[in-house]
Amino acid sequence: MGTARLLYDLAGRDPDFRFSPYCWRARLALAHKGLPVETRPWRFHETSRLEFSGQARVPVLVDGDQIVSDSWAIAVYLEKTYPDMPSLFGNPAAVPVVRALNFWSDLTLNPALSRLIVKRVHDCLDAQDQAYFRSSREKRFGATLEAIEAGHEQNLNAVKLALVPMQQLLETQAYLSGDAPAYADHILAGSLQWATLLAPSPLFAPNEPLARWFSNMLDAYGGLARRAHTLGSA
Amino acid sequence: MGTARLLYDLAGRDPDFRFSPYCWRARLALAHKGLPVETRPWRFHETSRLEFSGQARVPVLVDGDQIVSDSWAIAVYLEKTYPDMPSLFGNPAAVPVVRALNFWSDLTLNPALSRLIVKRVHDCLDAQDQAYFRSSREKRFGATLEAIEAGHEQNLNAVKLALVPMQQLLETQAYLSGDAPAYADHILAGSLQWATLLAPSPLFAPNEPLARWFSNMLDAYGGLARRAHTLGSA
Repeated sequence: MGTARLLYDLAGRDPDFRFSPYCWRARLALAHKGLPVETRPWRFHETSRLEFSGQARVPVLVDGDQIVSDSWAIAVYLEKTYPDMPSLFGNPAAVPVVRALNFWSDLTLNPALSRLIVKRVHDCLDAQDQAYFRSSREKRFGATLEAIEAGHEQNLNAVKLALVPMQQLLETQAYLSGDAPAYADHILAGSLQWATLLAPSPLFAPNEPLARWFSNMLDAYGGLARRAHTLGSA
Repeated sequence: MGTARLLYDLAGRDPDFRFSPYCWRARLALAHKGLPVETRPWRFHETSRLEFSGQARVPVLVDGDQIVSDSWAIAVYLEKTYPDMPSLFGNPAAVPVVRALNFWSDLTLNPALSRLIVKRVHDCLDAQDQAYFRSSREKRFGATLEAIEAGHEQNLNAVKLALVPMQQLLETQAYLSGDAPAYADHILAGSLQWATLLAPSPLFAPNEPLARWFSNMLDAYGGLARRAHTLGSA
């Protein structure tokens, strides 16, 4: 059998509730490569459990004797290490532009999504994580979680505005990566999985291009993302 | 010699002042392919001059007996028609993701840049264009050009925010396309050429990654974009 492949994956108070956009990117990328993985629930305060990785954030992939942290580094590692499995980028020429999309997701889309759900993320965390999370996010946004949540309508409009380019793109092609999903799709699907698992209301109407695409992403890889444990799950 | 290659290119009152982001994309793409082109100044009101193209907007490329309008369609056409010249996409696998960046530029970045410079665009146009431009833009933004211009500080902040992902990207790699410029770079360079030709103050500090990259883009292709006629030119 060899060593099991492990992924440290952010979890809520319920250890089966997994919502990190960056961990979902890694899980979708592993599934795309056809690589089974055992996920290990991890909470923000458990930094000592990640000491072996030389840093303090998830996702962390342990693949045999290789330790890789950061979702982008994991994607690049998987593509290099498993070149005969389905490609995450299609061709090396696409990597720099997929990285541009990755930065857009991290620095434009995710901050908008975060405002929409930050109070609900807080509420799903275990008690020890809640204190850290409230303090770090209130500092980042310069407002209390409750004040941010009170701006729901404005927050939702900002999300819709940030997603306009993707709506238009997905009206002209089936996936971000073209005719079939690959890592560019995993990036956006990770963000939207995080947001839809936590948002109080839908982010888009059923007839919008993003809704059709996201439904396909939930079904991809044997329905991996669709099987995600929700907050309402037993 | 064959038929000359022509590009219909948006112009101001001064026929040599060429500022359209979409026309700059096409000019950079043609230069990347090493294809000489004669540009023809065109104003918004001259729709009858574009009747041959079946639509009413520039850029329009006339390449022998081929007529292609829309900057994205021009890039795809050039890549297909001149496969032995330097590639605009590196590989077909990159095309769908470059298109995502194209939609981001059109629908997130350019609207932000437009607010910053819309009054100055108006002022550079010829008299006949000014009436059309004011009416269409005031309708689009729901405010007078003067009111939009009065929000300069807020408009500049919105531009800087939209560009954050590109700043980060260009801190990790030399060009959007990787080690050398290609069409992903032409997209962003077109937008920034338009904005810097018209903005009253710089969009970024000289030590920022975007400044270094944009300077390189101005120098690329024999300094094509750096030689652009400016509003202050004689």
